[in-house]
Amino acid sequence: MTRVFNFSAGPAALPEEVLSQAAAEMLDWHGSGMSVMEMSHRGKEFTSIIEQALADVRELMQVPAGYQVLFMQGGGLGENAIVPLNLLGRNNKVDIVETGSWSAKSRAEAARYGDLHLAASGLRAEAKQGKYTSIPAVADWRVRSDAAYLHICGNETIDGVEFFDFPDMAALGAPDVPLVVDVSSHILSRPLDVSKCGLLFGGAQKNIGPAGLTLVIVRDDLLDQAHALCPSAFNYKLVAANGSMYNTPPTYSIYIAGLVFQWLKRQGGVAAMAERNAAKASLLYDALDQSELYITHVEHACRSRMNVPFFLRDESLNEAFLAGAKARGLLQLKGHKSVGGMRASLYNAMPLAGVQALVDYLKEFEKSHG
Amino acid sequence: MTRVFNFSAGPAALPEEVLSQAAAEMLDWHGSGMSVMEMSHRGKEFTSIIEQALADVRELMQVPAGYQVLFMQGGGLGENAIVPLNLLGRNNKVDIVETGSWSAKSRAEAARYGDLHLAASGLRAEAKQGKYTSIPAVADWRVRSDAAYLHICGNETIDGVEFFDFPDMAALGAPDVPLVVDVSSHILSRPLDVSKCGLLFGGAQKNIGPAGLTLVIVRDDLLDQAHALCPSAFNYKLVAANGSMYNTPPTYSIYIAGLVFQWLKRQGGVAAMAERNAAKASLLYDALDQSELYITHVEHACRSRMNVPFFLRDESLNEAFLAGAKARGLLQLKGHKSVGGMRASLYNAMPLAGVQALVDYLKEFEKSHG
Repeated sequence: MTRVFNFSAGPAALPEEVLSQAAAEMLDWHGSGMSVMEMSHRGKEFTSIIEQALADVRELMQVPAGYQVLFMQGGGLGENAIVPLNLLGRNNKVDIVETGSWSAKSRAEAARYGDLHLAASGLRAEAKQGKYTSIPAVADWRVRSDAAYLHICGNETIDGVEFFDFPDMAALGAPDVPLVVDVSSHILSRPLDVSKCGLLFGGAQKNIGPAGLTLVIVRDDLLDQAHALCPSAFNYKLVAANGSMYNTPPTYSIYIAGLVFQWLKRQGGVAAMAERNAAKASLLYDALDQSELYITHVEHACRSRMNVPFFLRDESLNEAFLAGAKARGLLQLKGHKSVGGMRASLYNAMPLAGVQALVDYLKEFEKSHG
Repeated sequence: MTRVFNFSAGPAALPEEVLSQAAAEMLDWHGSGMSVMEMSHRGKEFTSIIEQALADVRELMQVPAGYQVLFMQGGGLGENAIVPLNLLGRNNKVDIVETGSWSAKSRAEAARYGDLHLAASGLRAEAKQGKYTSIPAVADWRVRSDAAYLHICGNETIDGVEFFDFPDMAALGAPDVPLVVDVSSHILSRPLDVSKCGLLFGGAQKNIGPAGLTLVIVRDDLLDQAHALCPSAFNYKLVAANGSMYNTPPTYSIYIAGLVFQWLKRQGGVAAMAERNAAKASLLYDALDQSELYITHVEHACRSRMNVPFFLRDESLNEAFLAGAKARGLLQLKGHKSVGGMRASLYNAMPLAGVQALVDYLKEFEKSHG
């Protein structure tokens, strides 16, 4: 078997140690005689798995007291509706800052549930490549001080725009407005300041585990403002009160996520991952910056360390580039269809060796096609 | 490793062949160099997996033309809200027949979204044991002929009450009312007449695969009546139009479900499973009927072949019974907390040998405690 370097934006590469352990335990978890897939979620075996996983999230992300950690279903797109259904029950004003395709999707969905106000937008509608390349200056954001919440996307998976600091709501003139952050594609990649947020959510399929699991971290005071039509299975208060088992949770996905959390702790935790991720991203961006063949569009200050979109200046070379990459075991480098070009996703499970192999190939391809 | 006989009501036992194949393919699916968990859902590898799984559902369940098969998230409890959010957009009248704990939950949730009418109920509120033991005679159902749909639970996992035929809506005086059936715990256990239904749904974690995957089969004419606040990620029309990939689907769970479907086909399909399941259920019910120690309450005509609740007449023996069962590798026999007693779930993956081992134990325990 030859494992490849998988640059998929998600579902994405997982640590090989985690997959090996899962394979070894598939038919008999810890002498239970059962696969984790087969266990009642109410039994002591699975209870120990979910409790450890929840505790590890708290430890890894340094979640302060006063926040609930929830395992849910539905993914980031589901949360685009589930968040407003949970938060707009008493005050339907929702503000959004648009910095890429994902916050644009969140904006469209939230507008179905509330009185939506665009507090700022980085959209360059006229651009041929790079419709989103920057975060609007915080001084220009116009957040309503009586909004139910402000939504931002911490890292734009498709466009490669990342917030390295979450905004200070007091400085925005909206000290009472909870900040909601979609952290799907940079959760656990570096320390994130949970205390600045009212709510964070993310699909698991980038830095956590299998698709189908969603992580929500929500401040206690936001548990009591659900819309009358919020489905019970997605009501944060009910999910929190039942330890993420109001309905049957996605047990096997939680188990895999738990193995990833344990792996992260063995790697030195989130701070250690942040250093490695910074090194990986620098290696790739430096190579792209030094080339004549490749181009990137995102402003340096908000270049994502997780998702690196880039383009070949001569797009007629795209197919040859991808074919050569595939031949070297560098997979899933094609950019999102809405953006085109290429994209390399460098989540926690992508080793430096994978990025080095990509950089070597970038140089080789430029030499032969430059 | 000693595999046990796992009588859990769900998540539940899976075929050992399926688990072995999953373990073997964990790090490298079909020479791709990737685990299925790591694949982009848009790539050709996963596309082939989901397309095969959808086709196998159609074949196994003989889904007629004019129905969509959807893979979704949220489970049965989620669908209790997602169904009304999809079907009550134009006409908010919803009728329900209550035959157990699950239809009671569906009733409570549907009442949040529509004008709910209880068409019939099997509740014996005064009963100490066996609150639901029968299906009300169809002649006594009072279904509104202008309801948006009628909901029934095909098999009550907790109470052990099963419909062996779905009702004929014309005979109920409601020929235009679509029948919605929660088939979570008997899907694929025997042939179900999809053509009698407008919609069927089920969580995967009983007869299909891992928790976190939900199967929906919906007739095309029901795709266009969603409530204005139905979340996009759970909108049947959008999910159908995007081949169950409107959002990132639970890819690994779909893969496991696909392996189960292939296993089912090797077993001879649903008709062959129906024969085996009837034999398994008879073996157990006969043993219970012949004993002085155990008692069951559900009427013979609607005794579930999947979930067999039973009680020890002397409940002070419960703990001893469970401890002895566990010592013999007969696990997860404790009844649902709302019902008490015992419950043996006999899904497709439970072999006859497991039921025989349980019956042997029932007799042995009766001999020593009778």
